[in-house]
Amino acid sequence: MESLGHNTPLQASEHPNLDWFAENGTCGIMDTISPGVRPGSDTAHLSILGYDPYEIYTGRGPFEAAGVGIVGKKGDVAFRCNFATVDENLNVIDRRAGRIKEPDTSGLASALEGMTIEGVDITVKEATEHRAVLLLSGKGLSAQVSDVDPHHLDSILECQPLEEGAELTARVVNEFVRRSYEKLNGHRINLRRIKEGKPVANILLPRGSGTFPDIQSFKERYGMKAACISGVSLIRGIGRVLGMDVIEDQRFTGGLDSDIDLKARTALRLLDENDFVLMNVKMADIASHDSDPQQKMEVISLIDSMAGILRKELSSEMVVAITADHCTPITVGDHSGDPVPLIVWAADGVRDCVTRYDESSCSFGGLGRIRGVNLLPILLDKANRSEKFGA
Amino acid sequence: MESLGHNTPLQASEHPNLDWFAENGTCGIMDTISPGVRPGSDTAHLSILGYDPYEIYTGRGPFEAAGVGIVGKKGDVAFRCNFATVDENLNVIDRRAGRIKEPDTSGLASALEGMTIEGVDITVKEATEHRAVLLLSGKGLSAQVSDVDPHHLDSILECQPLEEGAELTARVVNEFVRRSYEKLNGHRINLRRIKEGKPVANILLPRGSGTFPDIQSFKERYGMKAACISGVSLIRGIGRVLGMDVIEDQRFTGGLDSDIDLKARTALRLLDENDFVLMNVKMADIASHDSDPQQKMEVISLIDSMAGILRKELSSEMVVAITADHCTPITVGDHSGDPVPLIVWAADGVRDCVTRYDESSCSFGGLGRIRGVNLLPILLDKANRSEKFGA
Repeated sequence: MESLGHNTPLQASEHPNLDWFAENGTCGIMDTISPGVRPGSDTAHLSILGYDPYEIYTGRGPFEAAGVGIVGKKGDVAFRCNFATVDENLNVIDRRAGRIKEPDTSGLASALEGMTIEGVDITVKEATEHRAVLLLSGKGLSAQVSDVDPHHLDSILECQPLEEGAELTARVVNEFVRRSYEKLNGHRINLRRIKEGKPVANILLPRGSGTFPDIQSFKERYGMKAACISGVSLIRGIGRVLGMDVIEDQRFTGGLDSDIDLKARTALRLLDENDFVLMNVKMADIASHDSDPQQKMEVISLIDSMAGILRKELSSEMVVAITADHCTPITVGDHSGDPVPLIVWAADGVRDCVTRYDESSCSFGGLGRIRGVNLLPILLDKANRSEKFGA
Repeated sequence: MESLGHNTPLQASEHPNLDWFAENGTCGIMDTISPGVRPGSDTAHLSILGYDPYEIYTGRGPFEAAGVGIVGKKGDVAFRCNFATVDENLNVIDRRAGRIKEPDTSGLASALEGMTIEGVDITVKEATEHRAVLLLSGKGLSAQVSDVDPHHLDSILECQPLEEGAELTARVVNEFVRRSYEKLNGHRINLRRIKEGKPVANILLPRGSGTFPDIQSFKERYGMKAACISGVSLIRGIGRVLGMDVIEDQRFTGGLDSDIDLKARTALRLLDENDFVLMNVKMADIASHDSDPQQKMEVISLIDSMAGILRKELSSEMVVAITADHCTPITVGDHSGDPVPLIVWAADGVRDCVTRYDESSCSFGGLGRIRGVNLLPILLDKANRSEKFGA
């Protein structure tokens, strides 16, 4: 960015520990999905873990559901939902019901439990803040249905089938939404909220449908017992869908106040009982979404301190990859399709000429430009866990 | 490696002729199969020659068979075998029958010729030392059967079908093994070996089954008449399966005593009558399997001298690729999934900034990081043999 002399915050800031890894490891740049493709955090994580998102990703729903502990069977369809406020004509008054949260959301979610519609079992669970997840379990379901959430203040939408065979799913969703209004509108929690002058959460608005994929667990695919540390529910959901041991700790907030030093120490401890640990830090992305270069440089400094904790505890048994799921340039304020910088460190790995961890320096590295799906095979090889193909 | 200042033997040694090619050619790094995948020599050679091993490689058998001149038809199944010593209960006493070799092995192999079992024709041929190959020719065969060789001193294993439809193959293999014991146990060569105090070779133990693929010859695919020079039987087998003219010379040993200068002179001579010559030098791999950096550096010096012979005879008609089928880091002592360095030289080719041939220097080259299957199209293009795709 111009205020940093046309440098990125990573180029403009000091980060001696990340640079130590760059100097003593092999560097490169990586398209987590494919060159120029702007990844979501979910599709990028799947890809980096070796799962082609074009094959298994139909929508965010299943991974959000898994993030709050609802893991469906293959073919089940999940949605993200908002608790919202509607008037008697089902016009949306507040898409977040006054940013309602726990314990009201869990109380209201309980009221929607135990439904079966046209043979399809319904599960509802509260998520962070005003959010919830909806799981449909049964036969003949499809994720190819439209959102009920109008995404702005308007009448709620009818869920429409978007392919042949999706009619059942659409009918079940519409009936579920109708019943959610019926059960929530006069609910005692909402009567109390009216007394307190708060907007009622009298409907659930589904969106982001996706099918639970027929997916091989991480253990099956790589023969490694794996754990996942993340403050972001969506990433924990990916860990759960892949059968990882998912660590929950309220100090891992997914925000700028997250205790990332504790994450590093937790990762090191988890390596005693796991072969692989996925650790995700969200805060650099948040600073970028806010387009705040100063904040981003402060975050980079925190991440560098965290890398210092890992650096002190390295052993010849360990292989460390330092990278990102996507770029979020402050000049864009959103995810971009740029390649991310990557370091692979192993005690006896080849060293290249790169001595700094940033987008430009790493592009000179010995790894060249790889794809996200290449990463796990490379790490397995460095860890001496690869099997030879052929003789 | 640490004793070389974290350099590889290629980085630590002098090799002026290889460096001349690097300086006057275009360099890069290459994943012979795919990033992080540990290639066998056979799958890597197939891939470098433009044949996807995931499509055509079912096991080492067919290429070993072709290595000793037995090229089956599409669908024929071949095995590697050991001549072994078993007791009367078919327990293995010596997996290599006292490292039996020619002429005993060819004498014993002849005794097994001419069999037909359930309509399947059997061919047996001795290979290097205690080894042999077994070819099954007929209809309805499958390579999805288990090994008879127990791989350690134990009872021989029954060949089991590993997929539906493999029952015939398993029965034929089991009957063949039974007959091999019947015919070899009292064979005059073995009676003589007993007198000499040597272990008898009274059974043949098949392993490593593979199907002869439906493969396009190198000539058909690229329009180039090709020859293959290698001291390694497996690589000569790949040459034969692809229809190359395979050069046999006892001075090409595949060992540290191989006359590689003669290989270079032979390659140059072969170019008079061929459009393409594949020349394989095994010795750097051997030094690495022995994890001996000093020996590896001496081998690199020999290879550099050989490169000097090629350098003196270059012409503007020639395109030279210098690369490896896989890395064998001395720190690993086995094949690894690291990319290999690559030089493509052509008289009027683009020169890049690289002036040294090693793993790290080549990663800066103008070719970037490519895959093995990309190599032949690049060489064809440099040789002005490519056809335009489109208008």
